[in-house]
Amino acid sequence: MKPLHTKFAAALLAFWLVASAQAAGPLPSWNDGPAKESIVGFVAKVTKEGGPDFVAPPERIATFDQDGTLWVEHPLYSQALFALDRVADLAGQHPEWQEQDPFKSVLAGDREAVAKFTEQDWVRIIAATQTGMTTTEFQAIVQDWLTKAKHPRFKRPYTDLVYQPMLELMAYLRANGFKTYIVTGGGQDFVRVYSEQVYGIPPEQVVGSTIVAKYEYRNGKPVIIREPKVFFITDRAGKPVSINLFIGKRPCAAFGNAGGDREMLEWATSGDGARLGMLVLHDDEEREYAYGPALGLPDTKVGKFTPELYDEAKQKGWLIISMKKDWKRIFPGENLK
Amino acid sequence: MKPLHTKFAAALLAFWLVASAQAAGPLPSWNDGPAKESIVGFVAKVTKEGGPDFVAPPERIATFDQDGTLWVEHPLYSQALFALDRVADLAGQHPEWQEQDPFKSVLAGDREAVAKFTEQDWVRIIAATQTGMTTTEFQAIVQDWLTKAKHPRFKRPYTDLVYQPMLELMAYLRANGFKTYIVTGGGQDFVRVYSEQVYGIPPEQVVGSTIVAKYEYRNGKPVIIREPKVFFITDRAGKPVSINLFIGKRPCAAFGNAGGDREMLEWATSGDGARLGMLVLHDDEEREYAYGPALGLPDTKVGKFTPELYDEAKQKGWLIISMKKDWKRIFPGENLK
Repeated sequence: MKPLHTKFAAALLAFWLVASAQAAGPLPSWNDGPAKESIVGFVAKVTKEGGPDFVAPPERIATFDQDGTLWVEHPLYSQALFALDRVADLAGQHPEWQEQDPFKSVLAGDREAVAKFTEQDWVRIIAATQTGMTTTEFQAIVQDWLTKAKHPRFKRPYTDLVYQPMLELMAYLRANGFKTYIVTGGGQDFVRVYSEQVYGIPPEQVVGSTIVAKYEYRNGKPVIIREPKVFFITDRAGKPVSINLFIGKRPCAAFGNAGGDREMLEWATSGDGARLGMLVLHDDEEREYAYGPALGLPDTKVGKFTPELYDEAKQKGWLIISMKKDWKRIFPGENLK
Repeated sequence: MKPLHTKFAAALLAFWLVASAQAAGPLPSWNDGPAKESIVGFVAKVTKEGGPDFVAPPERIATFDQDGTLWVEHPLYSQALFALDRVADLAGQHPEWQEQDPFKSVLAGDREAVAKFTEQDWVRIIAATQTGMTTTEFQAIVQDWLTKAKHPRFKRPYTDLVYQPMLELMAYLRANGFKTYIVTGGGQDFVRVYSEQVYGIPPEQVVGSTIVAKYEYRNGKPVIIREPKVFFITDRAGKPVSINLFIGKRPCAAFGNAGGDREMLEWATSGDGARLGMLVLHDDEEREYAYGPALGLPDTKVGKFTPELYDEAKQKGWLIISMKKDWKRIFPGENLK
């Protein structure tokens, strides 16, 4: 091939690469539509130097709820399923659990009873199964569970059941100078075990619910022990409070999927300048789950999205993401719809 | 000038630039000696890829106490002086303070009484003067005070009274892939106001003592209110606990100056691999202050460095930084000693 032909071929290749990257765009698993447009438009505005909505990079903070926003939360939060597995694992050391609720119902596999557990029941289960050990020991227990446990419907590890469109959204925001945080009602120490590997979010950018921890000595070495006492719940109004505590800045973008995220979105979007608030609506029974009860979707105790929240979102300009309409694929590696 | 001469001149200039940068070295305000050698040797070890002590960048965490480690803490912590000024500012709205201690002693300018204040006295003063407002209002009050207040001896703003060698150390660590954090017994919200500007440390990397905060509405807008209740004290064993809470990683380097930093240094240096623990000793009455009571230096209630801590540091290989011998200058802009 002559040099001129080589150059021509190289130019063609370069053109094709640029054209296909543009065709794919920054959010390849998102269908074109208002949700994708809002995201891209928001990012264009806040990154435009000299523009009226420009946000300096240190203030580009985006916060994401986890359960139901970044990964599957049905039939039950992963950490709750982890807690139930821990009850089974530890039952041999606790013969009294055979007669004591909530443990008795868990060991009997009584799903209806488990579905009705109160917050206090869950606190008892978590205290009995996820405290008393060092932070390092707890990390190893979680890591071990994550490699073995499989989701009851999808038969895949929980860390596979993350939403590909949200992974793309987080990467897109980071590529545009945003610092991405998880702000979850789930256990901070639990999520920190896999956040870097699964979401590209380092442990120090995971803000969650916490229990009291204690510095002490075991075998002459300092350790941090998980105590059976709630320290702080990062849910509802606790989300903006934890954001203030851990980040000290008001996010300009916030993403959630349920009532527990309402105040986080309110706090993020009531600041000055361009703001982005989004709620994921689970309306895709076929590929994932469908629950509300907003829009007449089935009611649920796990990740409830009420009609009131739906109305408030519409009124305040928070975008509703329809999993069914807005997402080409749900999980990584899945074929495009 | 001929091209050859130009090239020669450029080469000479490049040589001179490199040589002078090497002469200045990474820590120009540090005298040569064991402290500087330890720092440079530690950084060389943890950044040497393939070496036995290599630490991956995400694990390069360095934590710094603030008062007495990064800036002047005598005659009293800056935030305490801020609190005393706030009592004077607010006295007109609180006629009852004229008769009530601890306020009465503050308003009477009774330094001896103030020096004897208990922790409970300080909590009352802080509750009365630094709570009830929104977080944004508090930031503005601190900012305003910082621009006006002057240190009683040095007659300069407190934010000028930072230690130049420590600024260089933080910059040097960051240039080598470290993430630098402040971990202070002082108020987190107070330090966050100036941490970026003064230390190059963003608010989200400031971990301190905190009060309870509450999400509520004022004039129809969401706000976060500072409540008159202690949430967590990041001092002594509270330092490793807060490090675990906010960072979720064990630091490989920690810097302090007093008993309140003991557990932080112990926690940081008891991990595997290369570790660096350092304590600043205030032994320079002429340029700053001298207090211990370690090494027979005058005793103090503010930033006490006991003989027991000194012995433990020696035994555990924590380096003692002598302000007098190790530092060429104390404050930015000061002439070299």
